[in-house]
Amino acid sequence: MNTAPSPAASSVQPLVDMGDLSPYASPHRLASVRREGAVVALAWDDGVAARFHALWLRDNCACAACRHPMTLERTFELLDLPHDPLIAAAETTRNGALRVVWAASETMPRHESLYDPGWLRARRPGAPAAARRERRTWGADLVERLPDLHYGEVAGSDAGLHRWLEALEVYGAVLLRGMPAVDGEVRRFAERIGPIRETNFGTTFDVVSKPNPNNAAYTAIKLEPHADLVNWKRAPDVQLLHCHWNEAEGGESILVDGLGAAETLREDDPAAFGLLAGTPVDFRFQDADHDIRYRGPIIETDADGRVVGLRFNNWIRDTGAVDADTAEAFYGAYRALWRLLRSPARQARFKLGAGDLMTFDNIRTLHGRAAFDPNTGRRKLQGCYLDRDWIESSMRMIERRMAAA
Amino acid sequence: MNTAPSPAASSVQPLVDMGDLSPYASPHRLASVRREGAVVALAWDDGVAARFHALWLRDNCACAACRHPMTLERTFELLDLPHDPLIAAAETTRNGALRVVWAASETMPRHESLYDPGWLRARRPGAPAAARRERRTWGADLVERLPDLHYGEVAGSDAGLHRWLEALEVYGAVLLRGMPAVDGEVRRFAERIGPIRETNFGTTFDVVSKPNPNNAAYTAIKLEPHADLVNWKRAPDVQLLHCHWNEAEGGESILVDGLGAAETLREDDPAAFGLLAGTPVDFRFQDADHDIRYRGPIIETDADGRVVGLRFNNWIRDTGAVDADTAEAFYGAYRALWRLLRSPARQARFKLGAGDLMTFDNIRTLHGRAAFDPNTGRRKLQGCYLDRDWIESSMRMIERRMAAA
Repeated sequence: MNTAPSPAASSVQPLVDMGDLSPYASPHRLASVRREGAVVALAWDDGVAARFHALWLRDNCACAACRHPMTLERTFELLDLPHDPLIAAAETTRNGALRVVWAASETMPRHESLYDPGWLRARRPGAPAAARRERRTWGADLVERLPDLHYGEVAGSDAGLHRWLEALEVYGAVLLRGMPAVDGEVRRFAERIGPIRETNFGTTFDVVSKPNPNNAAYTAIKLEPHADLVNWKRAPDVQLLHCHWNEAEGGESILVDGLGAAETLREDDPAAFGLLAGTPVDFRFQDADHDIRYRGPIIETDADGRVVGLRFNNWIRDTGAVDADTAEAFYGAYRALWRLLRSPARQARFKLGAGDLMTFDNIRTLHGRAAFDPNTGRRKLQGCYLDRDWIESSMRMIERRMAAA
Repeated sequence: MNTAPSPAASSVQPLVDMGDLSPYASPHRLASVRREGAVVALAWDDGVAARFHALWLRDNCACAACRHPMTLERTFELLDLPHDPLIAAAETTRNGALRVVWAASETMPRHESLYDPGWLRARRPGAPAAARRERRTWGADLVERLPDLHYGEVAGSDAGLHRWLEALEVYGAVLLRGMPAVDGEVRRFAERIGPIRETNFGTTFDVVSKPNPNNAAYTAIKLEPHADLVNWKRAPDVQLLHCHWNEAEGGESILVDGLGAAETLREDDPAAFGLLAGTPVDFRFQDADHDIRYRGPIIETDADGRVVGLRFNNWIRDTGAVDADTAEAFYGAYRALWRLLRSPARQARFKLGAGDLMTFDNIRTLHGRAAFDPNTGRRKLQGCYLDRDWIESSMRMIERRMAAA
């Protein structure tokens, strides 16, 4: 599972500064450059070939006039060209870069662009997508499949933090042991990755049994597997729950892979899957200071139909406007999904101990707990939320540092 | 445009506590209750009629056993019923509420549910959607169409803040004059609505010409109309820009209604619209500490095909993998949209003065500025971001307070 780039891969040096902070140099050299009208056809020394259109090449010129040398942003504006860019020459430079010369006209000055062959190679149409981490589904066996990570390792090294982040991306859940069970530690840890996503429950929140709860987590009742804050336009991506004490009877944690459950439903009962992926449902949280609502389908899919996660939360599901004639089908589908989420084979159950940190994808991985008896001992988890933009950026920064090392 | 509920509407009292903090009482009484198998058919005294399925009614019982009296969340779990709920009786109570009695069976105890007729009426299938604010498109005339709002009015009263919030929702932009031009004021104002959305540019950011900029806004160059942070999974919903000084030559602000531009493109060139709404494009921000990337279409539409906004930002648009054979069509569509955004008839242009606050929907409304000459005077805007969940919740809270007044 360790896909962090090895330092060795970075020994090749780039030929052209493309204004890109990620490594892009490649040992493969250009073997041929051919112009075909508005297209430049390239081949590398191992037979890999690609075609680049003049518009794309001009749009992505990395010279200091076209890309800001400090912001690294594109300052060139294609719309300012009085006519389409015309290639006067396309050739390899002495050191092996691609040089494209843009023809001058009455209204356009001559311009020259240089491209690094490795940078072009990585960006060629049809290039294998940059190591997208494959998501793996799981069931009651989750804990055995996760890497055994200790706080010291993750807090103290890029490699350890990368393992933790990667497990979170692949499994949608990760455990960490030995994190000092003190107030604010979960916040300090999360802020190494990015700013906390603040919600109506604050920046960090204490999951304890409270006398005047404003949501189910602040009671001692069992919590069905659910996703938090699905009444938001976009619920927080990731949740961290850090155990301070867990001495009460009961209170085992439950995690369920929503991805696996949704895919099973799609196979077993495509109509039910379709109803839950296609029917907007209202969700709502209200208290003395807030009234936060969102309408969206329970199964969230992306543009390619891939399941992203489940907007499953029976407490804050609002009434919606379920038509009397479709109620049986809708509730039937809802209960079919719920039944899958309750299946013991899908539920990873374990008891957090003081110092354990449980982190999970809030939408992909449903979380719950067994009821506990607050009279038998203390139980306190401290939690916060993070968004995926920061998680992904952190992984890229570690990979950049490791490649440069 | 003032759609805040009038206090008069709330003089009717609810008949049943439905665990709903929004006003729901209605002067219309139930005229008939009829049971039709698993459906309860209701009619109100003005002829409005609706049918509710037993599953929906049972799911939404508001008694203290089914809905937590403090969290107001549903604690009843439909999946726990051993069989579908059976209606033993459906009738009007003496005070005019709906009472449904659920039949006891060997495995299910008898249960009774009470429903407020106004609450049911508002939730009946096909009920007119709760006052969804119609978005209005605009062009160079934006400023004349906006309400003329002064800081004192908005900071000091619920009604003023509601007018400001409503203009933001309807036009996707709103101006406010006379806000003390001091450091942190924009933050204090925004935090009345909700927590700032923190980004890689911090919680608040100063838009000034900087010696080592990490993005185009921190230079003195002209800024094409654009949306910020479209390299994020979800860019911040709303941006606030507060003018401290604007004494340099140039630097006029530009706002463009992306909604209007996209709809014009859809009419004039449906194929170009389709390409921009359907082709995922890469966006990326990179500096020494971050590498934040997102892939999504330039025109963002919702499930109903309505335009939500434009992911338009030429600086941070990444290379993508534009196929040589489709490059002309894609870049043609991109330039067609861009040309619309540059049209003077669409651009509202005005110069912010010290104390002005400009606030806009970051995705719907593109923002830009004319170049300025930093040697001719000081120019400083201080900005921050907010998310729509907080905006909408704030409006609902004001409406709740006004209804209770």
